[in-house]
Amino acid sequence: MRIILIGGTGTIGAAIYQLLSGTHDIVRASRTGGELTVDMSSAKSIRDMFARTGRFDALVCAAGQARFAPFAELAEEDFAFSLANKLMGQVNLVRIGSEFISDQGSFTLTSGILAQQPIPGSAAISLVNAGLEGFARAAALELPRGIRVNVVSPPWVRETLEKMGRDTAPGMPAAQVALAYRESVEGSGSGEVLSP
Amino acid sequence: MRIILIGGTGTIGAAIYQLLSGTHDIVRASRTGGELTVDMSSAKSIRDMFARTGRFDALVCAAGQARFAPFAELAEEDFAFSLANKLMGQVNLVRIGSEFISDQGSFTLTSGILAQQPIPGSAAISLVNAGLEGFARAAALELPRGIRVNVVSPPWVRETLEKMGRDTAPGMPAAQVALAYRESVEGSGSGEVLSP
Repeated sequence: MRIILIGGTGTIGAAIYQLLSGTHDIVRASRTGGELTVDMSSAKSIRDMFARTGRFDALVCAAGQARFAPFAELAEEDFAFSLANKLMGQVNLVRIGSEFISDQGSFTLTSGILAQQPIPGSAAISLVNAGLEGFARAAALELPRGIRVNVVSPPWVRETLEKMGRDTAPGMPAAQVALAYRESVEGSGSGEVLSP
Repeated sequence: MRIILIGGTGTIGAAIYQLLSGTHDIVRASRTGGELTVDMSSAKSIRDMFARTGRFDALVCAAGQARFAPFAELAEEDFAFSLANKLMGQVNLVRIGSEFISDQGSFTLTSGILAQQPIPGSAAISLVNAGLEGFARAAALELPRGIRVNVVSPPWVRETLEKMGRDTAPGMPAAQVALAYRESVEGSGSGEVLSP
């Protein structure tokens, strides 16, 4: 398959690339590097990316920013940033990408465990992650031409905890998280939230 | 208790008013009528409302618009409208209202069954409803002074189905839905999604 991978250089994205690049043709896109650049907060930038890539069989998004901060300090612009980036960025990848994707193609988005298991500081991220899951369940009912959409909800990732200087024991290795993305791309499910 | 009820003239709002007005002091607010007017899409309008009401013990929101349309026709502005109204409107009621609410006060927001059980046309609404639930679970962890926040997720309401000319058999009477709002206001739970 020809797969567009957004965020292929992040911790999870790199693991997805490593897992899938042996058997698929992967085009990596990100904000600043990769073969393609894309600003997820801009529908125009997303459309420009698809115009350059042309037809593809799957899109995997392991990118998207949202703000982590104490609730009392989360300002309206922090919510706006989070909604424009991780939430509407991924909605727009599906909304616009469905014009360009092959029949029976698939979209695989990324939410996260904070959707269901919040921690102090996660109000905007929990909103975004849960919203993405609600969106995918609904959009799956209407995508034409056999197109599928799923969301992977990663747990805390071992490599990320390590970078943060935190206890890595509760973390899952990124390589194991990547298996859920492969299941979404190569399987037949749609409207699903996959928890690795 | 002194309770601000936003959307007290809608189908569910009127049932909440009827249930609670015998035992509580209710101030109704809505876009166009009520004792107070408020534009939920505007943080400034919300702040002005709280400045006029002063201290209160509970806020119940049974208002908030989101767009229902086939996924292929949902444009970026339909998502933006839905996010600004039903989603960020209710987030801002909590974010700004927490400066004005009494100790041990409560916020009760409204999502809806489409969060978990979507239908064709509900992509934006399902996103908004699920996002609200994620938000409330997270914000509940951080609200100061014993303040609580819950979300009621109403099923299809009998009176609404009747107005739409649809089969009312699967609908729940609004008076029964209102009981979940009372449970949130008078109970002690927080971060909960109540399904009537």
